[in-house]
Amino acid sequence: MSRLFMFEKPLGMRDTLPELYEKKHQVRTGVADTLKLWGYQFIETPTLEYYETVGAASAIADQQLFKLLDKEGHTVVLRPDMTAPIARVAASKLLNEDLPVRLAYSANVFRAQQREGGRPAEFEQIGVECLNEETVSCDGEVIALLISSLKKAGLEQFQVSIGHVGFANELFVQILGTNGRATTLRKYLFEKNYVGYREHVNSLPLSSIDKKRLLQLLELRGGEEIIGLALDIIENDKGKQAILELKELWEVIKDYGVAEYVKFDFTIVSHMSYYSGILFEAYAGNVGFPIGNGGRYSLIEKFGKTASATGFAVRMDMLLEALQGGQIENTTHCIFFSQERRKEAFELAASMHEQGQKAVLQDITGVRNLDAFTKRFAETTYLIGGRANE
Amino acid sequence: MSRLFMFEKPLGMRDTLPELYEKKHQVRTGVADTLKLWGYQFIETPTLEYYETVGAASAIADQQLFKLLDKEGHTVVLRPDMTAPIARVAASKLLNEDLPVRLAYSANVFRAQQREGGRPAEFEQIGVECLNEETVSCDGEVIALLISSLKKAGLEQFQVSIGHVGFANELFVQILGTNGRATTLRKYLFEKNYVGYREHVNSLPLSSIDKKRLLQLLELRGGEEIIGLALDIIENDKGKQAILELKELWEVIKDYGVAEYVKFDFTIVSHMSYYSGILFEAYAGNVGFPIGNGGRYSLIEKFGKTASATGFAVRMDMLLEALQGGQIENTTHCIFFSQERRKEAFELAASMHEQGQKAVLQDITGVRNLDAFTKRFAETTYLIGGRANE
Repeated sequence: MSRLFMFEKPLGMRDTLPELYEKKHQVRTGVADTLKLWGYQFIETPTLEYYETVGAASAIADQQLFKLLDKEGHTVVLRPDMTAPIARVAASKLLNEDLPVRLAYSANVFRAQQREGGRPAEFEQIGVECLNEETVSCDGEVIALLISSLKKAGLEQFQVSIGHVGFANELFVQILGTNGRATTLRKYLFEKNYVGYREHVNSLPLSSIDKKRLLQLLELRGGEEIIGLALDIIENDKGKQAILELKELWEVIKDYGVAEYVKFDFTIVSHMSYYSGILFEAYAGNVGFPIGNGGRYSLIEKFGKTASATGFAVRMDMLLEALQGGQIENTTHCIFFSQERRKEAFELAASMHEQGQKAVLQDITGVRNLDAFTKRFAETTYLIGGRANE
Repeated sequence: MSRLFMFEKPLGMRDTLPELYEKKHQVRTGVADTLKLWGYQFIETPTLEYYETVGAASAIADQQLFKLLDKEGHTVVLRPDMTAPIARVAASKLLNEDLPVRLAYSANVFRAQQREGGRPAEFEQIGVECLNEETVSCDGEVIALLISSLKKAGLEQFQVSIGHVGFANELFVQILGTNGRATTLRKYLFEKNYVGYREHVNSLPLSSIDKKRLLQLLELRGGEEIIGLALDIIENDKGKQAILELKELWEVIKDYGVAEYVKFDFTIVSHMSYYSGILFEAYAGNVGFPIGNGGRYSLIEKFGKTASATGFAVRMDMLLEALQGGQIENTTHCIFFSQERRKEAFELAASMHEQGQKAVLQDITGVRNLDAFTKRFAETTYLIGGRANE
């Protein structure tokens, strides 16, 4: 084995060294504490799930799934998201009484990379699912909780954009006749490639009025005033219904006192096929990928229950990127000892630990380069040799 | 897809529902805080590693590895332990200055099950590695830290048995000529099948004196007095050296004030081929499998550095089994609201959250069975209808 290969990791796999780990832990704890305060209960599901059940339900592209065969010849996958596993658990164990269920998770998910593009193939998501609760209040709660969590994590500048899966769907059906014909337009929106969207609209064999309406969709991004503009563009009832839901949601968000963080964006579409209502994405100015996203979905039906749910997932790596800097102070003490004063050193360390002071115990004979080692600590104490040498 | 299969999970895979999750989280936090106080720094490594590097180094039986092919045709494995990945990270990034490095981890590891035997195929380990530190003080530190961690987790009755890989090895070589001839005896010891060991010893073509010495090994379990007995059995220097190391370790453990938790057990052997010095196992009376184990190893050499290390891993599932009961009190409040008093409800929840009180906000129109839902909470508040109805 070559020395270089010896240290390698599979494509897209990362190590997290102590400093980043500590930051991640602090941020995770802040978010998790917020989710718990709002009454969400954490659960854990296996890393491996059957391809036929959770793998298929997850709506992540097949080539992004890590697949393997288990001992019984079934195809299993490394979970590509947490929404599908939680739907499985909820449908099988937690929805028997037909009540709202509020669940949270903090877990790594897996999406295979085709080639090295700097994107992680394993990353942590922390999020919630409010299941079997169909009110707009619930949608608002999940969005307010996302905002509260990001603030708790220390994020100051961010924005949550809210759309509705029904609006673009209905507009496209109305103008293009079928949803299928909208695939290219939807792809451009998903990629936020508005130039490509415009060019494609202009190339379509449509009346200038219809083209204008499709292009107007791109303008539907902004504050409360957007609602009125959207109502002007859409004609059919399902489309109008989507707008009215958003209008109601806006009232809920205002009552939560978090409207300053929220904008409308009717161009939001999702690659997740299971979304059925509102959709949202959280952005921080300096990060080119959503920190978090979510929406209302009806995935639970795939697991034999009729129940819809709203959830969000925050990507820890993106959130940490948005939070940037903030050195963690090194407060660790090192107590060097020799055999003669070992017991004294142990007692000193025990009393420091008792007071919450981080302290390393280090046998002086175990360190070859004392100067370099000492630099790793905030303070040092030497308990060396006989008492007389003190 | 049949309704039954829909809910299934791959062999040995488990869901962790809210109550168990919370207990696990509390225990994990208690242990992790202890490890940090002692100056151990947490790191995280990928779930997937190359088979040729970490997979091969891990010394977990090949048929217990979850293997898959990555997009480039390399075999990758789900990590079967954390010691090998940490050795990889340390050797490649953290040992450049040739100093002691204290690392900790809390991670799930994967061991494929051949058939359903109730054993988990994915389970959490929390542990430490003190790397590039060769003193007996370091061995003692790791054992004292294990004891301190288990106490912090709330475990009262437990015992750490300490042995040395060199003792049985040398005794077997001395009597049987080669280490290879000891495979069956070692297997019986590993399985703690002392009846099988005795029968096998008696079946061997050896002098009665040698048989007696092999059988005496089984008696070498107990307190400090065992050291003297062990010295009587072993003849060669390497074997005596192992005993003297344990004698020195005992002094360190006494200075830590934790000798009451420690016993010697010279019958401890390991299935991990990389162990090179002391070995230990932690048991709680009611659990038939070690809660934790560890020892000194020279695994880092497989990653191109000459450095030995001592570490331990605690199995969270076994620790939770040992801790048993202890209901977590439900303190969550539920605030039911109707649209008219929504804002008031949100403000009440915000002030409760501010004070660290768990509170769910529930739109009264979102619950079909109010009686059943109410039972899930410690307390409820209703902010329903106009003010006049209060």
